[in-house]
Amino acid sequence: MPNPSPKYASDPALVSLGVAIRGIRLVRGFSQEDLALQSQIERSYMSSIERGMQNVGVMTLVRICATLGVSVAELMSAAKL
Amino acid sequence: MPNPSPKYASDPALVSLGVAIRGIRLVRGFSQEDLALQSQIERSYMSSIERGMQNVGVMTLVRICATLGVSVAELMSAAKL
Repeated sequence: MPNPSPKYASDPALVSLGVAIRGIRLVRGFSQEDLALQSQIERSYMSSIERGMQNVGVMTLVRICATLGVSVAELMSAAKL
Repeated sequence: MPNPSPKYASDPALVSLGVAIRGIRLVRGFSQEDLALQSQIERSYMSSIERGMQNVGVMTLVRICATLGVSVAELMSAAKL
């Protein structure tokens, strides 16, 4: 299990981002495993991101958004960030 | 001097993000030092971000955008991400 971000885990911004990723993922019909695999992200890390436990880096977001077929700007807008 | 992201330094996405941050910073009339100080970021790290050398985390972006008075979505849109 990946270590949660010690400083930022469960920060409202990260929780909102995780909810937005999960929402778009479900709308696009991806399982968490599919999204993790296609974004070259470890599945448990993907789960941790969706739960708002990770201070995700831009490059991970770029890969997640490419898999989901949305821009990072659209994801951030969905997350109200 | 902060270590550049070993894996992603100078990735086009990070360079584009750095250019967008710099552009908005100049339009808003902040020096790099002002932006770093008000965003609680070390100045040399801020410089490294603007040069596309850092895989910036969401929480750092949230602070930079709060200081600049733009949403993270607006910043990502300006960076064409």
